[in-house]
Amino acid sequence: MTEELRAVGERLGEIGRRFDDRNWVLGTSGNFSVVLSREPLRLAITSSGASKGALTSDQILEIDESGIVVQGGGRPSAEARLHVEIVRARAAAAAVLHTHSLWSTLLSDQHAAQGGIEIEGYEMLKGLDGVASHEHREWIPVLENDQDMVRLGANVREALARHPTSHAFLLRRHGMYTWGNTLAEAVRHVEIVEFLLEAVGRSAQRGGVPWRS
Amino acid sequence: MTEELRAVGERLGEIGRRFDDRNWVLGTSGNFSVVLSREPLRLAITSSGASKGALTSDQILEIDESGIVVQGGGRPSAEARLHVEIVRARAAAAAVLHTHSLWSTLLSDQHAAQGGIEIEGYEMLKGLDGVASHEHREWIPVLENDQDMVRLGANVREALARHPTSHAFLLRRHGMYTWGNTLAEAVRHVEIVEFLLEAVGRSAQRGGVPWRS
Amino acid sequence: MTEELRAVGERLGEIGRRFDDRNWVLGTSGNFSVVLSREPLRLAITSSGASKGALTSDQILEIDESGIVVQGGGRPSAEARLHVEIVRARAAAAAVLHTHSLWSTLLSDQHAAQGGIEIEGYEMLKGLDGVASHEHREWIPVLENDQDMVRLGANVREALARHPTSHAFLLRRHGMYTWGNTLAEAVRHVEIVEFLLEAVGRSAQRGGVPWRS
Amino acid sequence: MTEELRAVGERLGEIGRRFDDRNWVLGTSGNFSVVLSREPLRLAITSSGASKGALTSDQILEIDESGIVVQGGGRPSAEARLHVEIVRARAAAAAVLHTHSLWSTLLSDQHAAQGGIEIEGYEMLKGLDGVASHEHREWIPVLENDQDMVRLGANVREALARHPTSHAFLLRRHGMYTWGNTLAEAVRHVEIVEFLLEAVGRSAQRGGVPWRS
Repeated sequence: MTEELRAVGERLGEIGRRFDDRNWVLGTSGNFSVVLSREPLRLAITSSGASKGALTSDQILEIDESGIVVQGGGRPSAEARLHVEIVRARAAAAAVLHTHSLWSTLLSDQHAAQGGIEIEGYEMLKGLDGVASHEHREWIPVLENDQDMVRLGANVREALARHPTSHAFLLRRHGMYTWGNTLAEAVRHVEIVEFLLEAVGRSAQRGGVPWRS
Repeated sequence: MTEELRAVGERLGEIGRRFDDRNWVLGTSGNFSVVLSREPLRLAITSSGASKGALTSDQILEIDESGIVVQGGGRPSAEARLHVEIVRARAAAAAVLHTHSLWSTLLSDQHAAQGGIEIEGYEMLKGLDGVASHEHREWIPVLENDQDMVRLGANVREALARHPTSHAFLLRRHGMYTWGNTLAEAVRHVEIVEFLLEAVGRSAQRGGVPWRS
Repeated sequence: MTEELRAVGERLGEIGRRFDDRNWVLGTSGNFSVVLSREPLRLAITSSGASKGALTSDQILEIDESGIVVQGGGRPSAEARLHVEIVRARAAAAAVLHTHSLWSTLLSDQHAAQGGIEIEGYEMLKGLDGVASHEHREWIPVLENDQDMVRLGANVREALARHPTSHAFLLRRHGMYTWGNTLAEAVRHVEIVEFLLEAVGRSAQRGGVPWRS
Repeated sequence: MTEELRAVGERLGEIGRRFDDRNWVLGTSGNFSVVLSREPLRLAITSSGASKGALTSDQILEIDESGIVVQGGGRPSAEARLHVEIVRARAAAAAVLHTHSLWSTLLSDQHAAQGGIEIEGYEMLKGLDGVASHEHREWIPVLENDQDMVRLGANVREALARHPTSHAFLLRRHGMYTWGNTLAEAVRHVEIVEFLLEAVGRSAQRGGVPWRS
């Protein structure tokens, strides 16, 4: 294992413990990746079946753009294809993080019929890359969940192309994907989007208040 | 105390701290067991009255299939009989975990009249042994709580026989039982089922959305 | 400072960190006491204004039955009088713990008009001293909050006399008091009652289900 | 970097970890300041973009009353101006803490039309400086959020002048500001106000109960 892969693994382990403490990656859910190189495309990605709260460096694999393991043991997550689609569609992305939180699960279901969730008027939006005001309107697409990764990958590709400014998307009753231009930014995006989803979800429970009514 | 029993105790202690952090075993609630051998049946089980967040190896007993203590001090949990019923009914089970969480308590009560909870359409279901798609329909039986362990044991046996593919069951206003082919799998099942129960419970609060409506 | 008082302080510090992690003693709320002797009555009690999550041994005082400081610096909590009333009314009590949790605050308010909360049918009730079945009916009196400690103390005395089997009481919009025959039992009672209050509170939000309807 | 600034940084780091554990400063949200001197006015303040759960001493800057960096690297938070307004308006304030919690976000939105939140009848109010009874009526102003810091600063100044006894204010869909005569008091105020906002918010969900109805 290269030093680089080991170092990525250690950092992903810290992130896993942080997310696990917040119940965003219960069971062995969630998967994380980091772009090691773009030409050729190489990702460090968590192996299938790893507990994110107890992630060790030997549970990190290096894969190529077809999901073939280049370095490390174990099997990459079935969702590795989605990670590849994301880093292709977002040329500056350096890392992709996928969580299975309660609120992303609930809201993806409630908003499936509309195809997404519109979030506006929260200061926390400024934590998203390139957003300078709470008046920003963020669209978080919700895609139907699918076990056919070729078909789901195509849907992800299309959604990312159709919504070039979206910072995240949800899979229905499944979870959330976000990314960042650095790994630290991807972590920040997870925290921001999770916060906003819970705010939107709990606000709706209380009847909600339209923004700028 | 054998080295094996001590090692099991240390692992159960880690699990206890993890569950305690999530308030799934408050007070001295919950009990855990591991199959030491099948012929004859021997279980390592937490002793009655132990705080699961501060479990020590000397709070683990070895019992036989009648619940008689073979090794270690203290008294086995009154619910040891249920652990025995489970490992008999599920021939591959290597461990049984019982938690007293808030959501299992609430949902067992809400769904008592229907005799169980149907959960379908969640990606998290794939964390259950043998489940390959979110389209899986999981039935979690709810049994009436009972202090008569002979009668409750018979009800557990019957429910497990009637629902051979169920991965867990609830006791009404009491808590959840699950198991796994390894101890790690049993832990994963606890996390998956707890997540799903909270998702179902909070979704119902919001009016719910039928799956594939 | 005697070794005994220091040892009590260390144990109360651990309990404070545990409760603080669960947000039951935010700010500098809550206070804890341990009976050092009965003849004459001497209590070790947390000093006023101490953060329970960062409690140190020098924040523990020894007081007599009038609340006069016998050992240690600082001022005892204004509520020391209530601790004295409790250990007088419950002859076997070895420790008294007072928390300011969210659910005890909410439920004490909702149930103030009825003068108390009836809790029945939960397995967790068996964690209360002397309770052998979930069919137990626990009455948790709710007293009007009061800054006049003489008057409030008299009300506490009267409530404890009128409800000799109650394991805890609430002060309206204030918090919960419980006790135990050992300090460990008092801790267990806090966890059990907090769990039950949250279960009752969340169950009511969902419409509730009567026990044995 | 002076020893004083480093010591302040270490203490703010502890506070950041405490608040981060409670999800009050997710992403890189929130900012903290401490008054180093009043004549001339000098504040130690967290630099922009720092994760409060992983705050290090070199992420603390010294600024003057115009927000110009006097010591340390990095850029002060855009909201430094609000910190300056607060310490000017509250002559005894030694520290200012700003959090982005879920409940302050939700309640600031629900109560925006009334211009504030009235909180009365909670024992926890006694944790606020100078409050001696739960019968105290606290008014927490809610200001419209604004990216124009000059205009927002003026609004903050006006609100603090109009409500000289208020211990905190909220920015709509943004978060909470509070302060204290010591840094420890400011921390206590954060915990008290966060608790009260959650209590008010959850109580309203349950229909609420008027105080002294």
